[in-house]
Amino acid sequence: MLDGLVISVDAMGGDDAPDMVVKGLEYFLTHAGKGRRARFLLHGDSAKIKPILAKAPQTRERCEIVHTDKVVSMDDKPSQALRRGKDSSMWNTIAAVKAGRAEIAVSAGNTGALMAMSKLQLRMKQGVQRPALAATWPKQDGVCVVLDVGANIDVDPAQLTEFAVMGEAYYKAIHKSANPSIGLLNVGTEDQKGNAVIRAAHERLSQSRLGLNYVGYVEGNDISTGRTDVIVTDGFTGNVALKTAEGTAKLIGTFFNEALQGNIWSKITASLNAYALFKLKHRIDPRRVNGAVFLGLNGIVIKSHGGTDRVGFANAVNIAIGLAETDFMHAIDARLDALHDEDDNIGFIT
Amino acid sequence: MLDGLVISVDAMGGDDAPDMVVKGLEYFLTHAGKGRRARFLLHGDSAKIKPILAKAPQTRERCEIVHTDKVVSMDDKPSQALRRGKDSSMWNTIAAVKAGRAEIAVSAGNTGALMAMSKLQLRMKQGVQRPALAATWPKQDGVCVVLDVGANIDVDPAQLTEFAVMGEAYYKAIHKSANPSIGLLNVGTEDQKGNAVIRAAHERLSQSRLGLNYVGYVEGNDISTGRTDVIVTDGFTGNVALKTAEGTAKLIGTFFNEALQGNIWSKITASLNAYALFKLKHRIDPRRVNGAVFLGLNGIVIKSHGGTDRVGFANAVNIAIGLAETDFMHAIDARLDALHDEDDNIGFIT
Repeated sequence: MLDGLVISVDAMGGDDAPDMVVKGLEYFLTHAGKGRRARFLLHGDSAKIKPILAKAPQTRERCEIVHTDKVVSMDDKPSQALRRGKDSSMWNTIAAVKAGRAEIAVSAGNTGALMAMSKLQLRMKQGVQRPALAATWPKQDGVCVVLDVGANIDVDPAQLTEFAVMGEAYYKAIHKSANPSIGLLNVGTEDQKGNAVIRAAHERLSQSRLGLNYVGYVEGNDISTGRTDVIVTDGFTGNVALKTAEGTAKLIGTFFNEALQGNIWSKITASLNAYALFKLKHRIDPRRVNGAVFLGLNGIVIKSHGGTDRVGFANAVNIAIGLAETDFMHAIDARLDALHDEDDNIGFIT
Repeated sequence: MLDGLVISVDAMGGDDAPDMVVKGLEYFLTHAGKGRRARFLLHGDSAKIKPILAKAPQTRERCEIVHTDKVVSMDDKPSQALRRGKDSSMWNTIAAVKAGRAEIAVSAGNTGALMAMSKLQLRMKQGVQRPALAATWPKQDGVCVVLDVGANIDVDPAQLTEFAVMGEAYYKAIHKSANPSIGLLNVGTEDQKGNAVIRAAHERLSQSRLGLNYVGYVEGNDISTGRTDVIVTDGFTGNVALKTAEGTAKLIGTFFNEALQGNIWSKITASLNAYALFKLKHRIDPRRVNGAVFLGLNGIVIKSHGGTDRVGFANAVNIAIGLAETDFMHAIDARLDALHDEDDNIGFIT
């Protein structure tokens, strides 16, 4: 095999896998990843993967198929996946990272199963209870990172402060930003707003001496307008907010199409205006921000949207390679250790 | 004074009050409310209101100023407002409903103060703990109602089931719908999703024999795509979701404007396309859905967005009149009584 970073890929995860996955790798290698020295371990059904690889010359040259018949279905509950999914393509994708054969795992499969298997195999970093899922989100001038978006339904103040530190490390690694700003999602910006958990996390973050660029509470509209680079929230609120934003963007897209189809003038002028519309569609394209990261594990696992296409999957792979090229894992360890030391010093209950 | 429904209006609430408020009433009476026999009690500083009324002939004819110097500021905490705000324009607006001099109260003032004053003066309906704030939201084919959007940060299962019943009654009253569909907001649609509070509310709603059109769990993207007419959630999640949707719509609007300003062709074709753009802007105009309702009180209080203009305020007044013309208060009483009776029968802890 060639040298370079090794990415472990679940070939069978996602609605249109393995077709979408292989085409996504090919898209990556011919676009954003052109000239990158990445290699891929492709876990899944060799008989199904090979015919697709035949039409993906770049990928074929840079990948190795690790065969398994077993697949975790999108409907499996995490507990079922853990019981029955050993040696499945998803399991093996993570196992390769655990064994040091790959730097990072990428899967578009069942989110709950991916989290459960990642937690079991890679284990949590010291002092961290559960992984947090960090998503990228378009904002006015670039993107922001929102976490947690679904892994932790109920959180305590210690978890929210860990999310802040992990989100900061992630943002720094991906965006080469020296001191990203961090906000805590709430229903208002005054001190008395929110519930006891949020207020305790706010107090803890406010009194930290770790040099966090913590700006305090932010509100739902601040996510898109881009008040901060990192938005910290519990997994329930983050999940609802992310999906609500997706639904809103989709609704406006439908309204937009309906408006343009209103009359013959609309149609003619819309086609004249194609370039502007193309730019707009590109900026709000959800595939551009596909690829969420499980943080807090001893290893990096990237979750691609299950319903994405090759362009979206290529973006998730791009995030994986971007992370693998940095010292992200050490940076996050150092920050978490410093946070936990500070917790001990100030007697913060974790 | 003339006959007809009486609406009690806080002339001093909102960023541009009393100007925006009086102009909003005039806009209502010359547009949606043309020919409606509504009258207004206008609470606030007579010296400030009169000059504006001079340029609002329709409103002048149908209103009575109830003078007070006192105003609740947008920054007052609810506790401060209760201590210092007696006889303020906001207080008097609610007091007129309490005393039976008006059917409904409308204010664009401080939300927390409005809720605290409404609760103190009007009192809660039997068995209801706190008011829920119900907002209207654009969806694919019309609008839906989302509650709570900020009044109840922490909720129990009994409150969520009350929100379902009150939201149903509200939707029926405003949209003349026989059997609106109701969804409970969650992070997935499978039974095991969410936390204990949501699962208990889901079970309670599922086993009800009150004829609720309860469809089960819905997700954030279902709000805009319009899977149900009523969306039930806690005030924290609802507030974040509402503001996130606003932020997303605003972001896309900015991207859209930037795309159209890209080049000379864009500018020319966009102006040719003005009608289509106008239609689009109308459909996503937040003023169209301005006006949230506090539910669960012995009286109806409408909260307008503080930063709205006359068009948005007119919409809030339109909702107020729409509600005042129905037997909404009796309908909500009957449904809450039936729910609480059923709670007793099945031994549901409330």
